[in-house]
Amino acid sequence: MEERPSSNFQPPYYDIVIVGAGPVGLTLSTCLARLGYRIKHIDIRAEPTPRGRADGIQPRSLDFLRNLGLKSAIMKHKPARVYEVAFWDPVEAGKGIVRTGTWASCPGFIDARYPFTTLLHQGLIERAFISDLEKYGVEVQRPWKITGFTSDEKANPEYPVEVRLEHVDGTNRETVRAKYLFGGEGARSFVREQLGIGITHKDPIAHVWGVMDGVIKTDFPDIRMKCTIHSDHGSIMVIPRENNMVRLYIQIASSTDPDWHPRKTATAEEVQASAKKILQPYTIEWETLDWYSVYPIGQGISDRYTLDHRVFLGGDACHTHSLQPKAGQGMNTAFLDAQNLAWKIHAVEAGFADRALLKTYEPERKEVAENLLAFDNKYAKLFSERRPAATEVQAASKHTNGHSEDNDFIKTFKESCEFTSGYGVAYGPNALNWSPSHPAQSHLIHPEGTKLRTGRLMVNADVTRVVDANVVHLEQQIPWNGSFRIYIFTGKPSTSATALKDLASHLGGKRSFFGSNLRADIDSVSHHERYNPHSLFFTIATIFAAPRSEIEISRDLPGLLSRYRDLVYADDKWDRRVPDAIAAAHAKMGVDEEKGGVVVVRLMGMWGL
Amino acid sequence: MEERPSSNFQPPYYDIVIVGAGPVGLTLSTCLARLGYRIKHIDIRAEPTPRGRADGIQPRSLDFLRNLGLKSAIMKHKPARVYEVAFWDPVEAGKGIVRTGTWASCPGFIDARYPFTTLLHQGLIERAFISDLEKYGVEVQRPWKITGFTSDEKANPEYPVEVRLEHVDGTNRETVRAKYLFGGEGARSFVREQLGIGITHKDPIAHVWGVMDGVIKTDFPDIRMKCTIHSDHGSIMVIPRENNMVRLYIQIASSTDPDWHPRKTATAEEVQASAKKILQPYTIEWETLDWYSVYPIGQGISDRYTLDHRVFLGGDACHTHSLQPKAGQGMNTAFLDAQNLAWKIHAVEAGFADRALLKTYEPERKEVAENLLAFDNKYAKLFSERRPAATEVQAASKHTNGHSEDNDFIKTFKESCEFTSGYGVAYGPNALNWSPSHPAQSHLIHPEGTKLRTGRLMVNADVTRVVDANVVHLEQQIPWNGSFRIYIFTGKPSTSATALKDLASHLGGKRSFFGSNLRADIDSVSHHERYNPHSLFFTIATIFAAPRSEIEISRDLPGLLSRYRDLVYADDKWDRRVPDAIAAAHAKMGVDEEKGGVVVVRLMGMWGL
Repeated sequence: MEERPSSNFQPPYYDIVIVGAGPVGLTLSTCLARLGYRIKHIDIRAEPTPRGRADGIQPRSLDFLRNLGLKSAIMKHKPARVYEVAFWDPVEAGKGIVRTGTWASCPGFIDARYPFTTLLHQGLIERAFISDLEKYGVEVQRPWKITGFTSDEKANPEYPVEVRLEHVDGTNRETVRAKYLFGGEGARSFVREQLGIGITHKDPIAHVWGVMDGVIKTDFPDIRMKCTIHSDHGSIMVIPRENNMVRLYIQIASSTDPDWHPRKTATAEEVQASAKKILQPYTIEWETLDWYSVYPIGQGISDRYTLDHRVFLGGDACHTHSLQPKAGQGMNTAFLDAQNLAWKIHAVEAGFADRALLKTYEPERKEVAENLLAFDNKYAKLFSERRPAATEVQAASKHTNGHSEDNDFIKTFKESCEFTSGYGVAYGPNALNWSPSHPAQSHLIHPEGTKLRTGRLMVNADVTRVVDANVVHLEQQIPWNGSFRIYIFTGKPSTSATALKDLASHLGGKRSFFGSNLRADIDSVSHHERYNPHSLFFTIATIFAAPRSEIEISRDLPGLLSRYRDLVYADDKWDRRVPDAIAAAHAKMGVDEEKGGVVVVRLMGMWGL
Repeated sequence: MEERPSSNFQPPYYDIVIVGAGPVGLTLSTCLARLGYRIKHIDIRAEPTPRGRADGIQPRSLDFLRNLGLKSAIMKHKPARVYEVAFWDPVEAGKGIVRTGTWASCPGFIDARYPFTTLLHQGLIERAFISDLEKYGVEVQRPWKITGFTSDEKANPEYPVEVRLEHVDGTNRETVRAKYLFGGEGARSFVREQLGIGITHKDPIAHVWGVMDGVIKTDFPDIRMKCTIHSDHGSIMVIPRENNMVRLYIQIASSTDPDWHPRKTATAEEVQASAKKILQPYTIEWETLDWYSVYPIGQGISDRYTLDHRVFLGGDACHTHSLQPKAGQGMNTAFLDAQNLAWKIHAVEAGFADRALLKTYEPERKEVAENLLAFDNKYAKLFSERRPAATEVQAASKHTNGHSEDNDFIKTFKESCEFTSGYGVAYGPNALNWSPSHPAQSHLIHPEGTKLRTGRLMVNADVTRVVDANVVHLEQQIPWNGSFRIYIFTGKPSTSATALKDLASHLGGKRSFFGSNLRADIDSVSHHERYNPHSLFFTIATIFAAPRSEIEISRDLPGLLSRYRDLVYADDKWDRRVPDAIAAAHAKMGVDEEKGGVVVVRLMGMWGL
């Protein structure tokens, strides 16, 4: 074994070293690879997750994966889709269990494109990212580990991080320099340990769970549903999987047990025997046992996500969640940790934002993790106090939202659906998200009637693309490109024609936020470039409140805006949620159908303007 | 070179030899491979279509490809989608062209899942089939050709066809025996020639077309649309393609020209120069020229599709169409030729039907080809007489159908949309499709109110699958499996409970059509088998006019029917086309929402019952 000499040796330089190729590391890699950054990505495992693991993919995460162009690679595996959760409870003693209700996992009051949870083996999700990375020339180096790192901006302001890497069998070592280091190695993060960052446990209760994937034979009628089953013999959670498989979760121990021990375990046979008792009067037999694992789990959040804004943590390295029936947030939170960091690194490194922007990563993402945990605890508590009546669930699942008659339970239930579907995640007011009480007050900001909320996702809408008459999903029209999305809702074209001209003329000015952030290579950009012809930080889409046949791009759009001709839409599709609207997309956003308005979206989340 | 000795030699036996791996041959191969037939498939070309060619995939063909499980493999290439066709005409002499209207290619009155034409290079479509065939162990043997065949049922009743095959370079030969031979080699079919079958030309007019694929730069606003452009300098058709490409069709010669010659040609440069003139005042430049070809084309239909019901023809070997702006039927007709033959061969070979069933292939498919040609001619004539007013097109595109006020033009226009979308294809009354005047008269057959038409496609509908609460497309729930589909619409469960029991009991009887066609291996069928647990010829789905939460399969479905538990649905999804219906799927089919009814579907087309 030979280490490369450190004297006379120039280490290879990277924009970022990413440690760990689970969901968080792969998402960060994928986002940055698309923007052209130089990435060193390692993983300690010899191959992607071969079996088991994986949370479900939330409705909101599927939006995100689609925006990254990965949805079809995931859906081709025909994952199970959970639309409803069934609850089973004991009948009389000794008489087994009975279904006491079913709830929609993403009820109609949430306007989701994909109102279901997608369940797929984590390795297949990882492989979708890995195949995509290959197109950009990024390969995960395995099985390699990180053995140490230093970060010193004074010694090397451009590449302050030095990272030491080693093949797991010790046969090879590398030392590289990078602008950033990202620790996405999971709960036992080496990077977090080296930084001396602790974990705070919000809820002192810990659990040991057994989890089992396999093909079964049963007469239990809800075996293709997600089920929470309570019985006189214990509790179990059923999760349908791809390829006829079923996953069962059984709680083996809880820190509230008198004989609690975090290393308590159980064999697969013991868990199967328990499952048979719990499911009575139904029968269950295993045809194959694909995966079985026992693991202790507690809720905890890393105290810091970074110390110096050069070495960052994300995903399970920052937060572990309990496995409540309505939770399962790990992977979904990881996706968004990564994309939050990715666009901020891009904005800083490409010269759009001050380095201080990176300081918003920790508070934004830590607050999300904290809100999720706090909510999870609140909900579990409320749930353990009493089970809601079917009428309450029905009322809560209706299309209406924020009804004044809602009782506390219904309010909490609705909130829980928003959290578990991913649409409840919100960023609070900060430097990026102006609140209504921000000092910059104007009736033009957050205008009356808007249904869009700063720090939240944009509302989805169907529109007709003008250039080819395709009916498309507006919110997906701009792929993940690291840019802010400026949606110009014109309202009635005749009403807004002058405002549109003024806007274009302002954008074209050299001192505007737009004109002062043009691409260095603007004169050599191909005419096929649809999204970033002028600036790497802004993509502009225009939506006319008019039928497609009445829109003529060359006549109706001032020069600068007409360059985005592939992103010009007619708001002429009917929408069931606003059945009387003339321009449904305008109406869904709460933008005036006559006067229009401008919506600025930070990637797929709202930006304050 | 050595030929295998024909004495002392037992040739390899196949169920079928398929010659030609274009759309028709590949579809036949794919259908039969799924049913386990032994296939010898050869193609004279060394590789699939490398560039160019291809018609668009019609909305109805996309339904079919989805049913075969091939849609996602095709859509992953991001094909262009044509929702509307734009018409451009000369302004005043010398002033260039102007858009005179746009038409939906599949207007709202057609209830299509995919109301657009999908445009994709034929080689990518072929490859989707070829990858799928590999899963079933079928490989296309290339570049091989057929050099001769004999068919003699008397000499060998089981494998009457002997086929001689040869590598195109003559280095290798094979003689094989088969039950069937299929000639899908295109317009210059060797098999057709050997059979001495002629082609009848319905329309004496022939054309020479130039076709050109490439990436272009233009300020023509409809370059992403399908366009028909007439100008003082000639006519052109624009078709958007995948990967920023555009296809242009230019008519080089017509047999109506005074100097007509079928071998008249033009260089790519000449065609480009013509295009530039035609598109004035807009400019056009080619960045790449991907494919260019000149070909003569006429309308013709093969006089026979088979002589002995052992050697069959299909696809372009049987019919060539002109290239009218609203036509482009070749590949779409080929798909359905193949699936028509496939299920009939299966029904005969698996012992369900008498060999006489094969006699329905030619009349059913030949009539479709004839109707298409006849319609095409009628439409082209009407179209050349006068262009419809915008108001007429608007009226025709409305959701209503069969309006009494419709004038002739609107009626023809509507009919044309049905033809070009693929939903106009219908099989007339025959042994398989009973007409209302069939001698078997009963108010139970074709009951009053039904919106389903014998010989046509089943209407689509969204329903909720009971076992997992997934919202699904009913018409796609049974994959292509060579079986008749029996859809039991129960109506109100309490009303139909007894009828349902009686039906199940009848089906279970040994002498029923169902009980007398059970699988030989019925006792060893896996409990995972969803579609054919009892019979290879029937798959049964049940649709309750009730909300999912009120359906309990073990209680509501008699034993035999509950075996199809994965195909039990709640008709509880709202549909905009029947907004007031309680059970929308029932209402869309025109099945009584209270009393229910049984719909029998021949694969994806209606069967008479």
